Amino acid sequence: MDWQIYLDTHYDQHLQELLDFIRIPSISALPEHAADVQQAAEWTAKKMTVVGIENVEVMDTGGHPVVYGDWLHAADQPTIMIYGHFDVQPVDPLDLWDHPPFEPHVTENRIYARGASDDKGGMITPILAVEALLSTTGRLPVNVKFCFEGQEEIGSPQLPNFMARHAQKFACDLVVSADGLQWSADQPMLVTALKGLTAVQINVRGPQADLHSGLHGGVMNNPIEALTHIIASMRADDGRIAISGFFDNVVDLTPEDRQHIAAVPFDDDDYQRELGIPAFFGEPGYTTLERNWARPTLEFNGIWGGFQGEGTKTVIPSTAHAKITCRLVANQSPERIAALIEDHVMKHAPPGVEVEVIQLPGSSDPFLMAADHPAQQIAATVLTKLYGKKPYFVRVGGSVPVIPLFEQVLGAQTINFGWSIGDEQLHAPNEFYRLIHLKRGPSGYVMLLESLIDF
Amino acid sequence: MDWQIYLDTHYDQHLQELLDFIRIPSISALPEHAADVQQAAEWTAKKMTVVGIENVEVMDTGGHPVVYGDWLHAADQPTIMIYGHFDVQPVDPLDLWDHPPFEPHVTENRIYARGASDDKGGMITPILAVEALLSTTGRLPVNVKFCFEGQEEIGSPQLPNFMARHAQKFACDLVVSADGLQWSADQPMLVTALKGLTAVQINVRGPQADLHSGLHGGVMNNPIEALTHIIASMRADDGRIAISGFFDNVVDLTPEDRQHIAAVPFDDDDYQRELGIPAFFGEPGYTTLERNWARPTLEFNGIWGGFQGEGTKTVIPSTAHAKITCRLVANQSPERIAALIEDHVMKHAPPGVEVEVIQLPGSSDPFLMAADHPAQQIAATVLTKLYGKKPYFVRVGGSVPVIPLFEQVLGAQTINFGWSIGDEQLHAPNEFYRLIHLKRGPSGYVMLLESLIDF
Repeated sequence: MDWQIYLDTHYDQHLQELLDFIRIPSISALPEHAADVQQAAEWTAKKMTVVGIENVEVMDTGGHPVVYGDWLHAADQPTIMIYGHFDVQPVDPLDLWDHPPFEPHVTENRIYARGASDDKGGMITPILAVEALLSTTGRLPVNVKFCFEGQEEIGSPQLPNFMARHAQKFACDLVVSADGLQWSADQPMLVTALKGLTAVQINVRGPQADLHSGLHGGVMNNPIEALTHIIASMRADDGRIAISGFFDNVVDLTPEDRQHIAAVPFDDDDYQRELGIPAFFGEPGYTTLERNWARPTLEFNGIWGGFQGEGTKTVIPSTAHAKITCRLVANQSPERIAALIEDHVMKHAPPGVEVEVIQLPGSSDPFLMAADHPAQQIAATVLTKLYGKKPYFVRVGGSVPVIPLFEQVLGAQTINFGWSIGDEQLHAPNEFYRLIHLKRGPSGYVMLLESLIDF
Repeated sequence: MDWQIYLDTHYDQHLQELLDFIRIPSISALPEHAADVQQAAEWTAKKMTVVGIENVEVMDTGGHPVVYGDWLHAADQPTIMIYGHFDVQPVDPLDLWDHPPFEPHVTENRIYARGASDDKGGMITPILAVEALLSTTGRLPVNVKFCFEGQEEIGSPQLPNFMARHAQKFACDLVVSADGLQWSADQPMLVTALKGLTAVQINVRGPQADLHSGLHGGVMNNPIEALTHIIASMRADDGRIAISGFFDNVVDLTPEDRQHIAAVPFDDDDYQRELGIPAFFGEPGYTTLERNWARPTLEFNGIWGGFQGEGTKTVIPSTAHAKITCRLVANQSPERIAALIEDHVMKHAPPGVEVEVIQLPGSSDPFLMAADHPAQQIAATVLTKLYGKKPYFVRVGGSVPVIPLFEQVLGAQTINFGWSIGDEQLHAPNEFYRLIHLKRGPSGYVMLLESLIDF
């Protein structure tokens, strides 16, 4: 039997399996759901075993588990590791859901449920593809490993140590992430870059206690004011970040990169209206999308000090604080950027106050995999066949720490090969997944594995 | 009988009366004590009537009452209005009091109780002086009016309207405030200036909602950052306020003013240690005490926007805010300074955000009464006799709105003639009043009234 006929004839059964999988409320953020996360791991392991994946194992990470499995009988062929996650986001506010979040509601070619799109729909897809191939041909065109995790929605806290400990087991030539997006239901995309992240806090201390602004006014540097002078020094009036060395290692956009970005439909006016801002503001010399997708950023996430209540309080505060995150691009290092910020702050610290910079959690490396990388080109060919349209090559302003982690620990780059669409209410009430993905996705994975022969 | 003998022989009785007065828990800030504030007013009115003050009246203000009384039989002599207040501060934290706050504890020549020093000890003093004079001579050397209020500790909210309605009744040539300080138990002082106040808030609005710093980073002006650029523009690096027109109407210090300030013992090193700051910072060309006492200030009382919790949140906040107060000196106008700040903020508002400046409550005019003013000189002579030392002429960095109010509504200036010392735990647990004030104070008031003949 042809694998496509297998997928078509087993579609109803696969849908029922996905609904069973979704019914497990595997919320990783809530301790009371830890057993459900474990159950989702076991459900995954059982399904993998049933379809013929070998060496399946629910592995202890010290936190929520990882499910491993492999099929390694394609001699002289590359080893592909497929990534996804079986944990889901919390569901509150529950009253905004039209149906109970863990009772999947199928209507108008959609499954409404928590985790339907992020990432259970995506995660089951490569398993179904392997099922179709093993059932019809008894083998896979390349070697395949699986790494499905249960802690993606809480930032994968145990994964770095776990991967380092098991680097040999997960060794591979390429990672394919089943946790990803397409541009729209009929327009594919591939991700060429993710941003890294570095996070710091500035603490400014003035007098040892809050003071009466009349009794002690005029004689000391106010910590709030000192902090504003520091922050204001960090960007030039034209919008360019003014931290010395900040751009030193940045990989600039090539003309081809800019063409890929310009090829994506994007309307500045619509976006400005959506944001509700009077004007855009950012680094000179780049388009709005280039700034967001491909240029490093310096964002102030919070500031506080002194009195925040109603009315007036004539206080000189003892301290003032600000939180900063930078989204980084290749080849910026989170540690080096944090050090440069600290240098800048110390150099610009005004007299009369004590200033410190502390690093905050959330550090992540940037990721870049150019559109002309052979794996991107293979994936692009598959998506073009599948959708009848060439994919956009997009960059992401956000960070997905697991992908640079695979690069660091396994030396393997990652292609985005998931099916969700940005409008599917990921992380929000009434999350849904389009049934078209369940038809298209497994076929896509079969085609991708076949295309990776001799990669 | 001589008035001094009268005061000496009635000292024990006067002390008991003061203790009775203190026992009334007249906390103006707490609605459940409103009846106690009223009772303190009635206690005051009764005492005034008993000593021979005429036309005594507990007057409705719309809030806590004012007690009026007068003695107006000194033909061709000036009219002196004596001011004080019978309301007190709250007592919490109660567990820090060594004795119950409204059960006065007399020990080691001190009365420990809430309100002993601020201002019941001071307020009873001129009544006792008048008692001594009327009991021994049957008359007063000048015309006297009394204005005792019950809402000083909550900022006298009804007093401006009340005084305006009753300007004729309170008309006078000079106000003497029995709510004031001496430098120390053996060093007198007179106040030559109080600062005014103006208060504003800056609101900066960026995107219409908090945004994900990855999905939307790099394309807009962050409200926190925009706010810091505005604030940082308000002062030059050398410490001088950089708001155009801010110093236009400031009455500069004369050489004599600077001598008066320099004559007050003050140690920069001690003060720096007390504040716990690495260095002083302020307007160039002035000493620490001159900056605090005699120069207008620009203080940032609070700043906030975005995330203030533990750790990292990659958010671009929708808004950021800052609260500002300026302490003003003669002849700055609170309204004009608020308008200048708004002009400055609007002129320096960065692109890409919406900025507004709103006025906050707490506006107050500055007050200045030079040391060579005849009333200051008369009071100085009395204090010199009383203490055997010339008074310091001090300025106050804080604001006492009722004093500029008397100047505006009654056209009368105010001299400081109270007895508290800054160390007497005013507004704090274990407030106390030195018994020496109860001996010295009434004599001082008799001498002051006698010295004001033909003023």
